[in-house]
Amino acid sequence: MSERSPTACLLVIGNEVLSGRTRDANVQFLATRLGEIGIPLREVRVIPDVREKIVRTVNEVRAAFDHVFTTGGIGPTHDDITSECVAAAFDLPWEPHPEAWARLDRHYAPGEFNPARQRMATMPRGATLIDNAISVAPGFTIGNVHVLAGVPRIMQAMFESLAPRLQGGPPIASRTVHADGVMEGRIAEGLAAIQSRWPALDIGSYPYYRMGGGGVALVAKGVDAEAVEAASRDITALLRAIGGRPVPGEPPV
Amino acid sequence: MSERSPTACLLVIGNEVLSGRTRDANVQFLATRLGEIGIPLREVRVIPDVREKIVRTVNEVRAAFDHVFTTGGIGPTHDDITSECVAAAFDLPWEPHPEAWARLDRHYAPGEFNPARQRMATMPRGATLIDNAISVAPGFTIGNVHVLAGVPRIMQAMFESLAPRLQGGPPIASRTVHADGVMEGRIAEGLAAIQSRWPALDIGSYPYYRMGGGGVALVAKGVDAEAVEAASRDITALLRAIGGRPVPGEPPV
Repeated sequence: MSERSPTACLLVIGNEVLSGRTRDANVQFLATRLGEIGIPLREVRVIPDVREKIVRTVNEVRAAFDHVFTTGGIGPTHDDITSECVAAAFDLPWEPHPEAWARLDRHYAPGEFNPARQRMATMPRGATLIDNAISVAPGFTIGNVHVLAGVPRIMQAMFESLAPRLQGGPPIASRTVHADGVMEGRIAEGLAAIQSRWPALDIGSYPYYRMGGGGVALVAKGVDAEAVEAASRDITALLRAIGGRPVPGEPPV
Repeated sequence: MSERSPTACLLVIGNEVLSGRTRDANVQFLATRLGEIGIPLREVRVIPDVREKIVRTVNEVRAAFDHVFTTGGIGPTHDDITSECVAAAFDLPWEPHPEAWARLDRHYAPGEFNPARQRMATMPRGATLIDNAISVAPGFTIGNVHVLAGVPRIMQAMFESLAPRLQGGPPIASRTVHADGVMEGRIAEGLAAIQSRWPALDIGSYPYYRMGGGGVALVAKGVDAEAVEAASRDITALLRAIGGRPVPGEPPV
């Protein structure tokens, strides 16, 4: 087998996702991009804007994963407490960051850089800024924790500015085959045999449903691209053997 | 204050969300419905199809929350291991459930109720079935853990069949006001004062962005409906005081 991939955990911080007000749009983006750069996402937690909960969770996951990403809670209002909670988790002073302070001071009209906005320039001591090309107020990295905005457009810009600093492992190869009209229960046994033949790969089975019938999409993933190709050929043969018509790729939406 | 609301945690089980292949569609539905029936969702975890991880997480969250809901991993394929992991978490035998077995046996043509499909009728001993009006194979409740399908349409049907059995707390009242052109940094101080005046409520501030400018949506939530109304009036007054034009409700999408 290959070298071990570094792992990532995402903390989505915010009552609005837990109340159903907002549908999270950040998990899928980060899952995809982290996979591409070889830092697979292994867990996501969505937690409320509650100080003790954030501090405890940050400390739990930063010990368990190579990288922790947070989204949300870094704006100027009273419910934006991510930054001070991360400082508390690291037992570091939460204090004005000179460069963040200077950027925001330049950005606002005279008199508009008020105490609420100054909170956005207040960070754990020693934080490294993550640029925000959209709305100026930066995110930051402290230790293995990367603190990003919750607004998707801003989060994505921050992530792309951070990504070149992250050291990824080998990229994950992936092959998908789908077949209309095939039910999981008919291929399950054969698919389990393929998984046993390729223990280093993840073989996933995902039924889909749509007007006029559905089918199943089968995904082989792993760092060994040749093994992924071979497993994908096994999957194709399995689908043909039960009379299915395998087609490479995901089913059309 | 009122009686304490029971709490809920959701476990989304599946590699496909963590790889970015699938965008979760279940969190928002369950967050909304659980809020409506007075069992607010307090945490979500997305975890992979890994036995030890599922067992450990189920045991951790079932001790910490009144209700745990799981989605995903109850189909017939080798990567569907939620049911056996929940049995292991409770240290219960995982065995054929007579009623589930009978339903599936009736559903499939003779000879088609194969070993893979029989796994969908295998459950922790003592499980109570959750009906599946869409595709027959039931979910189940064991202790305070409710095991649902991952396919949104099926999960929703299961939840609605389960909901009448759940004992909710007082419903959560909510009022939203939004104002175009208002930036969070201008109201943050006044909003913090409103939060202090109504400590039993959750006052949330959510900026929005769209072509031609954005604004901010402010949400007051809590079990005391009169307090929510009063806080919403305070918020409206705050927005007017800085020259904004507050409008009830969420901003149009």
